[in-house]
Amino acid sequence: MIDRLAIVGLGLLGGSVARAARARSLAREIVAVGRDARRMETARRDGTVDRVTTDIADGIGAADFCVIATPVATLLDLLPAVCQALPAGAVLTDVGSTKARIVAEAERLGQARSVRFIGSHPMAGSEQSGYAVARADLFEGATVILTPTERSDRDALAQVDRLWRALGARLVRLEPAAHDRAVAAISHLPHLVADALVDAVVRMDPAFLDLAARGFKDTTRIAAASPLMWREIFLDNRPALAEALAAFRKALDHLEGIVAAEDGPALERELERIKQVRERLP
Amino acid sequence: MIDRLAIVGLGLLGGSVARAARARSLAREIVAVGRDARRMETARRDGTVDRVTTDIADGIGAADFCVIATPVATLLDLLPAVCQALPAGAVLTDVGSTKARIVAEAERLGQARSVRFIGSHPMAGSEQSGYAVARADLFEGATVILTPTERSDRDALAQVDRLWRALGARLVRLEPAAHDRAVAAISHLPHLVADALVDAVVRMDPAFLDLAARGFKDTTRIAAASPLMWREIFLDNRPALAEALAAFRKALDHLEGIVAAEDGPALERELERIKQVRERLP
Repeated sequence: MIDRLAIVGLGLLGGSVARAARARSLAREIVAVGRDARRMETARRDGTVDRVTTDIADGIGAADFCVIATPVATLLDLLPAVCQALPAGAVLTDVGSTKARIVAEAERLGQARSVRFIGSHPMAGSEQSGYAVARADLFEGATVILTPTERSDRDALAQVDRLWRALGARLVRLEPAAHDRAVAAISHLPHLVADALVDAVVRMDPAFLDLAARGFKDTTRIAAASPLMWREIFLDNRPALAEALAAFRKALDHLEGIVAAEDGPALERELERIKQVRERLP
Repeated sequence: MIDRLAIVGLGLLGGSVARAARARSLAREIVAVGRDARRMETARRDGTVDRVTTDIADGIGAADFCVIATPVATLLDLLPAVCQALPAGAVLTDVGSTKARIVAEAERLGQARSVRFIGSHPMAGSEQSGYAVARADLFEGATVILTPTERSDRDALAQVDRLWRALGARLVRLEPAAHDRAVAAISHLPHLVADALVDAVVRMDPAFLDLAARGFKDTTRIAAASPLMWREIFLDNRPALAEALAAFRKALDHLEGIVAAEDGPALERELERIKQVRERLP
């Protein structure tokens, strides 16, 4: 059991970690650290957290386990102060959607202070954000990717693994760089493409949007997600996103070429192959 | 009330027209015409249709209202025989996802035989197909686009309009060419893009698919639709699809350029603008 769990950033993910940890009695005390004390006050009043503070050192100075759950750029900005304030030996993890830069920074800063960092990426987002939509069951059945490295402390890895398992998640381990390529392909690319799809219709004729049916709505749902959060993800994962975009352009060129050549049988074969891949998704 | 309603092609859409018309008693008799009598027999036994036949002339020779509900290419192949067999004055409509070619052909063939054609496109598909998934409520709240031209018979237009309204649909009227551009933008483009997204991940590393979360599944759901049906739609709507693809590439290039330039504020502004468009969708 965690003695003092500190959560920095009480949005959808941080709030859901707090709610889930409280519901399962995984920590004796839960402290929330954020920029806006008034906004966090809801969580204190509803019993999800025991204490809220806008002062990082005050909030995490005595924590044995800390989760940073801010957007990616904020996380990189906060890391020095967090590693400075945490007691030696504390376990630190995050919920960032990109990993290579975060893990490198956190390991560098953490090592100097004996803070034991393990990168986490719970794949349980939503196009909504904020504590109001946080749920104790958000991680049940969700995939959480851990990105330990050869420098990671084995005991800290076991503790982070145990926390996510206790919240109901399915755990996968990947190298930070492999993680960034994988999420570029299955999350960041589809997101940028959904944005471009909406914009393509605006460019052709915005009136067409009145005819949008379920297919268009499903395909573009993620285009309604937080612009600030996705700005940071796209920028931070630029190299892997560029690789995914290149693969996507090849795939699209290939399909478009078959359509332009009016090769019906080849088109049907390709659509059948892709349908089978899609149907095998978990 | 329709006296004898003939439905050519008893799949998801044709079957749903039959079920909905029967449930609302919109026709005295419903006849299904298809290639496979055994497959249609289910609909006769469950009371949805009164008679099934594989012979077009036999099935529609005495119909006053006929709906062709086959895939697009089959529809174009069947049109001559259908217009030949229908009695003079009969109303003919379809459910095709493309309209310019179908309307031109049907008006040309229909005129010679006094068959009154009105193009329909019910936007109520699914990634599933076949009579087994047909539903009496499929068109409730769905948008049906009618594509009358200056050559259309006003009384036939009123009858087709009345049928879809009786099935619960919201009606929109567009010129055939405008229809094809609109559906290229909001249906055919997203579909081809969803296919390319799935294939892009296969090209990068198929193992990444194991990590697919809700966002990827939503965005690529339509990639599981019928390859035969979509082969015909993509090929038939080639020119409008090419225009939509060009608009999409411009939109994607624009976003990718901002990411490559690491212009955070511009990226956030664009994502915010697109999010607002997406959120206004009906």
